[in-house]
Amino acid sequence: MDKINIQEKLNLITDYWKPIIVGELNKQQVRLVKIKGEFVMHKHENEDELFLVIKGCFKMDYGDRIVHINEGEFIIIPKGVKHRPIADTEAHLLLFEPETVLNTGDVKNSFTVNSPEKK
Amino acid sequence: MDKINIQEKLNLITDYWKPIIVGELNKQQVRLVKIKGEFVMHKHENEDELFLVIKGCFKMDYGDRIVHINEGEFIIIPKGVKHRPIADTEAHLLLFEPETVLNTGDVKNSFTVNSPEKK
Repeated sequence: MDKINIQEKLNLITDYWKPIIVGELNKQQVRLVKIKGEFVMHKHENEDELFLVIKGCFKMDYGDRIVHINEGEFIIIPKGVKHRPIADTEAHLLLFEPETVLNTGDVKNSFTVNSPEKK
Repeated sequence: MDKINIQEKLNLITDYWKPIIVGELNKQQVRLVKIKGEFVMHKHENEDELFLVIKGCFKMDYGDRIVHINEGEFIIIPKGVKHRPIADTEAHLLLFEPETVLNTGDVKNSFTVNSPEKK
């Protein structure tokens, strides 16, 4: 019931592609992540996922097309849809998604964060 | 799977306290609302609710204390907790909440919006 300052939480993040949990409600989580470079193509079988750009911009690669998402914009990836975020330069994102979401979905590799930290 | 520009959607809002639906995922909705003045004290029996300030600032009145929320900050109101948003000047908010949420919760009055528009 106290407020959360997004920038203060972003300041705690030191690694790219490692989301932190900054809020929980209705079995959903608010996560923050800093990204740079190319992520792995993956999908979430049972969860839709929202990406909101707090700072910078990034591209969502669906395989057959790419959508550019800028600061102040968000995109929702429906369950089952393959996607891969790409950031040419550092970008800061806010994610809304079920608490069950694994960041790499159906893929397990060096990007996988099994238990994001709560900060 | 296309992006949503928050400012473009805010530009469609003409009335205070009338949320519009701009995104849906996992039975939750992303809503946008412009607020000014004092809302009605209410609670949501079964839903937690998130308020994120896009522009301006507002106060959340819990009855026994008030929290000031500024641009770039958010607050989560747990289910069952009485709350009342107050905006001394116009503020623009993004809400993340279950699709079942009625804006005035357990109260019905002139602020009640039974079916927010999708825009």
